[in-house]
Amino acid sequence: MTHARFTRLAQSLPASVPFVGPEEQERTRGAPFDARLGANENVFGPSPKAIAAMQAEAIEIWKYADAASHDLRAALAGHLGIEMGNIVVGEGIDGLLGYLVRLLIEPGDAVVTSDGAYPTFNYHVAGFGGVLHKLPYRDDHEDLRGLMALARERGAKLIYFANPDNPMGSWLSGADVVAALEDLPEGCLLLLDEAYIEFAPEGTAAPVEIEDERVIRMRTFSKAYGMAGARIGYALGSAGLIRNFEKIRNHFGMGRVAQAGALAALQDQDWLREICDKVAASREAIARIARDNGLDPLPSATNFVTVDCGADGDFARAVLGGLVAQGVFVRMPFVAPQDRCIRISCGTEADLARLAEALPEALRRARGG
Amino acid sequence: MTHARFTRLAQSLPASVPFVGPEEQERTRGAPFDARLGANENVFGPSPKAIAAMQAEAIEIWKYADAASHDLRAALAGHLGIEMGNIVVGEGIDGLLGYLVRLLIEPGDAVVTSDGAYPTFNYHVAGFGGVLHKLPYRDDHEDLRGLMALARERGAKLIYFANPDNPMGSWLSGADVVAALEDLPEGCLLLLDEAYIEFAPEGTAAPVEIEDERVIRMRTFSKAYGMAGARIGYALGSAGLIRNFEKIRNHFGMGRVAQAGALAALQDQDWLREICDKVAASREAIARIARDNGLDPLPSATNFVTVDCGADGDFARAVLGGLVAQGVFVRMPFVAPQDRCIRISCGTEADLARLAEALPEALRRARGG
Repeated sequence: MTHARFTRLAQSLPASVPFVGPEEQERTRGAPFDARLGANENVFGPSPKAIAAMQAEAIEIWKYADAASHDLRAALAGHLGIEMGNIVVGEGIDGLLGYLVRLLIEPGDAVVTSDGAYPTFNYHVAGFGGVLHKLPYRDDHEDLRGLMALARERGAKLIYFANPDNPMGSWLSGADVVAALEDLPEGCLLLLDEAYIEFAPEGTAAPVEIEDERVIRMRTFSKAYGMAGARIGYALGSAGLIRNFEKIRNHFGMGRVAQAGALAALQDQDWLREICDKVAASREAIARIARDNGLDPLPSATNFVTVDCGADGDFARAVLGGLVAQGVFVRMPFVAPQDRCIRISCGTEADLARLAEALPEALRRARGG
Repeated sequence: MTHARFTRLAQSLPASVPFVGPEEQERTRGAPFDARLGANENVFGPSPKAIAAMQAEAIEIWKYADAASHDLRAALAGHLGIEMGNIVVGEGIDGLLGYLVRLLIEPGDAVVTSDGAYPTFNYHVAGFGGVLHKLPYRDDHEDLRGLMALARERGAKLIYFANPDNPMGSWLSGADVVAALEDLPEGCLLLLDEAYIEFAPEGTAAPVEIEDERVIRMRTFSKAYGMAGARIGYALGSAGLIRNFEKIRNHFGMGRVAQAGALAALQDQDWLREICDKVAASREAIARIARDNGLDPLPSATNFVTVDCGADGDFARAVLGGLVAQGVFVRMPFVAPQDRCIRISCGTEADLARLAEALPEALRRARGG
């Protein structure tokens, strides 16, 4: 006797996770990692004021959080010079990606992304029955004009484009992003994932008019603001577009501690600047370690450095395996030819000392030495 | 030029929120409430050990949380004598309801609930295009056998049933719930919402075999565990059923602080027992205040008391309005004849003193005095 009659779509989906988390890997290997450099987390952490705000708010945890995220959205609106109606707060960019895909995509609808871009976006598209069309990276950059041409060809409803990009760390100027919008086909929305924008050079944030209906942007407190474990992201777009999230979002889904922390983090822009300096220094240090080992670090506008291991994907996977085996958690691009690289998140001096120690041995093993 | 092409379903949905939160009401009225007795929150709060665990974990907020919620699920499994594979943790019961509906319901599918039961469930069903069939309460109880008959008649895929019930506070014995399963039609899953179960008399939790594929149960840390603002719920069911959530859930959607707090809260069962005693005493106090004002408190197995105001919905709405105007936040059932009642959550002595003070005036006004 069967009781749960799943939708045809649900029946067709695999039970899958876009990423295996480091804790899962630690349980599998039976030991914790010595250096956690694989998830593009911000090891330097959030503003102490954000931590204090979260600790104070923990006492108020018996109350549901404000379903409108009023105070946080008001602060974001002031910070960005836009209206609250242009902002929706959600359970990380991951959660907001799911909501956006749900609003736009039904089975068979075309969606365009770069081959090897963010897997969680692909997970959500598959989860709503969308058909993904993937364009290769060009010179380790997402090819925005190419994505738009592919969208036109396929009649796609949605394009995913990250600036700066993960996993390659590459970026376009904001002006180039805006210029490319002339190629965006009608009936197609550009989803601009700016998770790493605070780390990027001045001029990388696309100067899109907030009421421009061609674009929705997503940002997060998980990266530069150092609050990955709080699960707070936000989407920016025209008020008419943003209003649609009210139709489907989990209104009471945001945590109270998380919102208080995000508000305090946003209000400490001095700390944010310090973090960005620390991240820049850490990028340099990672690049130096890579070069010292004969590897080629790619330029990065993020809090990670993607390092070209100089051979094919099997070689890079072996290097990654060697690092993980020595307790250094890193990740790598999934798709050739980007999978010639490994991706190393910025870390503390101690983290990078572990990396510097482990990398020669990992390379030796990968070379069969 | 239109860029966001929404699905037909998304176009058909209203921008709505299942509940207006108290913060929103406070902003509208321009003043905070003196007593927060409307959202069935647990004013007595979580275990101090849970607060301490959350405060300690705030320092680790730079890391994503464990996407598998391993430690919390392991602790729940131990506590309940089941396997980790029988448990999925999610963003409150609200989030889990959304996932379950998404797994089962496509446009046109029939779903059965009681008329006036949990609006957030209805919101999710509508959000996936399901067709709700509603059965009236019977003597202020959800009519479980009737729900099953209606499900059979409509070919429903899913029945929502809360035990204890919100908003009426009524309950069935767990034995009666299990006995009623004989009437559950094939192809229909019983969703048993046990959000308030810890407050209920011994024997209310239905003794369902965990691998029984007819039932999925949902529980929460928002009520008895006092952590509404942390957004942690969990669903219990057969491993084969629970595995399906892995196809669609936001794997990295759970907060780190929330998970640490929930784990510590679960481990302090002494505190939970104290809370349940305090809640029972508060229920008695609310009932007394109601009787002192000539109103009829209904029996409750929850952390609220639904009070029959003795007339129609308009009268009860006027009483509620009078309380809210005096700074006492309460809610009430939406549907007749249950809307003859107001619903008052358990509170501190100070909260109930405010209630006792405000209620006579609210009644006077409602009676046009």
